Amino acid sequence: MASPHNPSGEDSLIARYFKPLATDPGALGLVDDAAILQSLGDDIVVTTDAVVEGVHYLADDPPNTIARKALRVNLSDLAAKGAVPAGFVLTLALRSKEDAWLRPFADALGEDAKTFACPLLGGDTVSTPGPQMISITAFGRVPQGRMVGRTGAKPGDRILVTGTIGDAALGLDVLTGGAVAAALASDPAAKDALVSRYRVPQPRNVLAQAVRDHATAAMDVSDGLAGDLTKLCAASGVSATVDVESVPLSAAAASLIACNAVCVETLLAGGDDYEVLCTVPAAQSDVLIAAGWAAGLAVTAIGTIVEGNERPRFLDGRGQELALKRLSYSHF
Amino acid sequence: MASPHNPSGEDSLIARYFKPLATDPGALGLVDDAAILQSLGDDIVVTTDAVVEGVHYLADDPPNTIARKALRVNLSDLAAKGAVPAGFVLTLALRSKEDAWLRPFADALGEDAKTFACPLLGGDTVSTPGPQMISITAFGRVPQGRMVGRTGAKPGDRILVTGTIGDAALGLDVLTGGAVAAALASDPAAKDALVSRYRVPQPRNVLAQAVRDHATAAMDVSDGLAGDLTKLCAASGVSATVDVESVPLSAAAASLIACNAVCVETLLAGGDDYEVLCTVPAAQSDVLIAAGWAAGLAVTAIGTIVEGNERPRFLDGRGQELALKRLSYSHF
Repeated sequence: MASPHNPSGEDSLIARYFKPLATDPGALGLVDDAAILQSLGDDIVVTTDAVVEGVHYLADDPPNTIARKALRVNLSDLAAKGAVPAGFVLTLALRSKEDAWLRPFADALGEDAKTFACPLLGGDTVSTPGPQMISITAFGRVPQGRMVGRTGAKPGDRILVTGTIGDAALGLDVLTGGAVAAALASDPAAKDALVSRYRVPQPRNVLAQAVRDHATAAMDVSDGLAGDLTKLCAASGVSATVDVESVPLSAAAASLIACNAVCVETLLAGGDDYEVLCTVPAAQSDVLIAAGWAAGLAVTAIGTIVEGNERPRFLDGRGQELALKRLSYSHF
Repeated sequence: MASPHNPSGEDSLIARYFKPLATDPGALGLVDDAAILQSLGDDIVVTTDAVVEGVHYLADDPPNTIARKALRVNLSDLAAKGAVPAGFVLTLALRSKEDAWLRPFADALGEDAKTFACPLLGGDTVSTPGPQMISITAFGRVPQGRMVGRTGAKPGDRILVTGTIGDAALGLDVLTGGAVAAALASDPAAKDALVSRYRVPQPRNVLAQAVRDHATAAMDVSDGLAGDLTKLCAASGVSATVDVESVPLSAAAASLIACNAVCVETLLAGGDDYEVLCTVPAAQSDVLIAAGWAAGLAVTAIGTIVEGNERPRFLDGRGQELALKRLSYSHF
């Protein structure tokens, strides 16, 4: 801590890799300790999510996918809250400053910042002897009082989800040499697609405005659909029934279920989906589904909010309730 | 990652320890993924600083001081920017959820959040196999366009600094059994005072409004006075002369210098001071100094901004320039 170091090392690292990402005037070119976020009369939505090497990504994941995942898990929160991205700050805990890792990391982060119009506003770069960690706090704007929370779901609302569920959990299984890797041994394209879903989430920011306009409650699916719906229902003081056969699956996931290589619980509790889960008054669900299609995004009704305080019930094709042994991933 | 866990572990940890800190309505009781930060018509100042076990604090530092340091290094940035604290988000990377560590950590964080009127708005709690890390992003408010930057220092401005400089570096030396520990072997009170300065910064938020009203440029001293002044001058396109004998020292630091136990470079480049360094038009320096005294805080003039692009010159009592071998701490 008090040992001699190159005094300009940290600053030159920031200038070399991250200054090009700080395109917003409020970032002050990263020469200050602080950034300015103009509210433009809106509420600022704040979300923070960290990814840890060996926990949220694998040590040998490519640095470009690590960068995208670190930002996108936060963009996914903004999408589910109905917010328009406004920028982010980055804390990077690094073991070293190897160009071979930092260059593709910063380039990919910059590409995503541009794609999602979410510029880097500031950050902190620290050394760590341990696993690398990337902590991002992202900001979005919503008109005052319009952030979509978790507490507004009402009995009768339809439950909608974007994209497909469970692919990321299957992708992790491929990477760690589990049953999915074996079942797909002869289908490298399917394996690649699932791995890509694990490594690079596709945040649904194109749907943010429609979510804001129509959803009574929303969150992103990060820890597993079953557990996240349970949290949403608890926050809203309601229960739910889900038609498991309606849960949208990719072709790869559907075929793995069909051949009994994985069970449906793996998909429902797997986590890392980063899809939007929301509840919508029945009369407006078609509008939200149409908004998704207009943006090239599948939005699927999977169930209904009902009165009660019980955990949501997941029903199979015969109307029998599935006994899920676990609902989601938890760190502790 | 996909192994079975107690699904409610992370949520119950947040509820037990951190929900009491989420007193702002925008925190939504920590039941959402996101928080709402109302701008109240102001600009939002954003700053982010992380502390890593073994780098920014010692593994056996008490958890209550770790909590205070993690928040206060961010509050110090807000003070130097002239901002009023508005809240913070917390990312906690933990090896375990031991109550013996988390309880005093959360209690102290809550006390500081209350003292500085900076409530917890949200956060993320993740597991890590490595060193613990606490990353905080803090928010403040300033009237639109009024954040105090680093680029406004003008030739003729006086250079002011709050409190005393170098104590934290000396405190770290005590904790790591260096020369200071030996020199103060018979003075445990002095050692304790220096250790306290290292472990628990005293952010100067009481001076924020006066800084906003009078300073042309400001930053907090976190990496060492010499290096931080060098950065401020570079950002403003100016140079400076500092009268080293004017740099405010604690009684302990002054006595260590007097007996040659440490050299002045240790104090000027030591880091972890978390004092405000600012530049003020000469005609206004007395006003800022008086504002400090009114708040019970020493504010001391240590030099003058001059034209030029050279590194600031640090002059001893005979007007001779000190040749500083290092200016500050850097992570890389």
